[in-house]
Amino acid sequence: MKDDIILLGHGGGGLLSHELVTKKFLPLFKNIYLERLEDGAVFDIEGKKLCFSTDSYVVKPIFFPGGDIGSLAIHGTVNDLAMCGGVPLFLSAGFILEEGFPMEHLEKIIESMAQAAVKANVKIVTGDTKVVARGAMDGLYINTTGIGVIRYEGIISVSSVAPGDAIILNGAIGDHGAAILSKREELGLDTEILSDSAPLNGLVENILKASVNVHCMRDATRGGLGAILAEIADQSKCQIVLEEKNIPVKEAVKGVCEILGFDPMFLANEGKMVVFCSPADAQKVLQTMKVHPYGKDASIIGQVGKKDAGRLILNTIIGGSREIDLPAGELAPRIC
Amino acid sequence: MKDDIILLGHGGGGLLSHELVTKKFLPLFKNIYLERLEDGAVFDIEGKKLCFSTDSYVVKPIFFPGGDIGSLAIHGTVNDLAMCGGVPLFLSAGFILEEGFPMEHLEKIIESMAQAAVKANVKIVTGDTKVVARGAMDGLYINTTGIGVIRYEGIISVSSVAPGDAIILNGAIGDHGAAILSKREELGLDTEILSDSAPLNGLVENILKASVNVHCMRDATRGGLGAILAEIADQSKCQIVLEEKNIPVKEAVKGVCEILGFDPMFLANEGKMVVFCSPADAQKVLQTMKVHPYGKDASIIGQVGKKDAGRLILNTIIGGSREIDLPAGELAPRIC
Repeated sequence: MKDDIILLGHGGGGLLSHELVTKKFLPLFKNIYLERLEDGAVFDIEGKKLCFSTDSYVVKPIFFPGGDIGSLAIHGTVNDLAMCGGVPLFLSAGFILEEGFPMEHLEKIIESMAQAAVKANVKIVTGDTKVVARGAMDGLYINTTGIGVIRYEGIISVSSVAPGDAIILNGAIGDHGAAILSKREELGLDTEILSDSAPLNGLVENILKASVNVHCMRDATRGGLGAILAEIADQSKCQIVLEEKNIPVKEAVKGVCEILGFDPMFLANEGKMVVFCSPADAQKVLQTMKVHPYGKDASIIGQVGKKDAGRLILNTIIGGSREIDLPAGELAPRIC
Repeated sequence: MKDDIILLGHGGGGLLSHELVTKKFLPLFKNIYLERLEDGAVFDIEGKKLCFSTDSYVVKPIFFPGGDIGSLAIHGTVNDLAMCGGVPLFLSAGFILEEGFPMEHLEKIIESMAQAAVKANVKIVTGDTKVVARGAMDGLYINTTGIGVIRYEGIISVSSVAPGDAIILNGAIGDHGAAILSKREELGLDTEILSDSAPLNGLVENILKASVNVHCMRDATRGGLGAILAEIADQSKCQIVLEEKNIPVKEAVKGVCEILGFDPMFLANEGKMVVFCSPADAQKVLQTMKVHPYGKDASIIGQVGKKDAGRLILNTIIGGSREIDLPAGELAPRIC
């Protein structure tokens, strides 16, 4: 694969993304915070433990079933802070707009962001707007960056993942990816699939109240459940074994995957997360999740096995077993 | 002017930008932090006073005399935090890349960011990379967002600006804008003009050590010295009177302005700032600035007059006096 130009896959959340970060960014930006390679940075400022996370949103189309680029930009960054074990507090919003972008659309998006921020209990406290000439971009891109405070005493990090840990997923996978793809391809399905885009900080707060033995959390965004678990397996150098039968996928999402040739394991989610916790607390965490609106379909989908080369193994419904690798390139560009 | 679509001027730092923020963003994102309308937000997290600022960088060309989009993205956000009276600590970096962007250019920019971060004593601790298809944007846009801690006891804010305050500028204006424009227009000048892009946090630290009576600071970026002072006059509802003879402008910058029909007062700077402080401390602050490399050409350029409608008055070199308004539209698109 060409290494001299940027490819779509460099932004896809798979192997190329991983290589770009580890081979180009890390060696130069070298510091202990960035090296964690998690959803956000965690640091102390004069004794306060904070988390900090950024994401740019380039989703296409900007309005999709179940959300829009505005609500997505709030949920995505809120969720990244929550995955650090933080309580999200303040967000920035940076807009890059193309000359000629309809003001009406911008207003709808601002309104959607404002509503999402209220629902997620965060405040948008600072911002920036840049405009580029017609043709120099495609409509509207948004960056949100957030700060949260960490009050949890345990260390939530891929480095805390340990053999025996239970892996709990909060619901059906692939909805966001399927919603975007079916809208983009104009599949005209009988049942419209809605994005699962949602703020997970409330759910996380309950999980962290329920157990002091939560080891790692990750939202299954770009690259889907498959990519984030393959990455965690690789980073923790632990085997991860999943039971396919316990991973919920809606029939409509399966249908879109069949039509377009995608695997739900690699479709993006914007309201799905996995929790790694000690096996003794698994039922307690599961029950806590099940009583929350964003966790009602939660299930234990697997377990952390022995320390090894960090392989991700899927025990399939039909009784087989296969290894899942980090996808190489870009599966669905501009999904978030 | 059309109100139904986004115009270049909505990102220009002048009147249209101001209206977009105050009429579209503020009413929906309504909160006391955002309403300050300053370079960043200031808030407390469990008793720690922090500042938080975001900017997206879309400068064209991405490499220019005296800097590049990478160093600019570090300096710009570091300076916004410094203008809040904060010590910048941590930065995020969000990249949006066009498919096909040369990897070599990305590497140069990452290296430039890394060097600028070391020089400014901040750490890039978290990031994000998105890639869009060829043609969906123009090369590379970067968002940086930063966090700083505020240890200064005074309230640095446009609301602290008071009649009698001295206004001190740290050096010659217009370099950044003139550098970008002359490169873009391929003027082929005898003397190449270098951007003044620089981190001002060290200078600010010294200023804040020298005086407990600093009232407001602002870097003269988009829209230049004219726009930021017109905005401060408007927000503070104080008259601001400037002495043109005390505002340094390099001969080469004057030359570019004559050729292209610009006014240095409205050209962007990326290493220039104004300090508002009590008149009693003006000399002390000025002398402190003069011994710093980024303040050696500092001068007192004006004074805050009486409370009025917030007019900005320039006493010209030839002996006249004229009012300066916030520029309406976009003077030089993609200057930062």
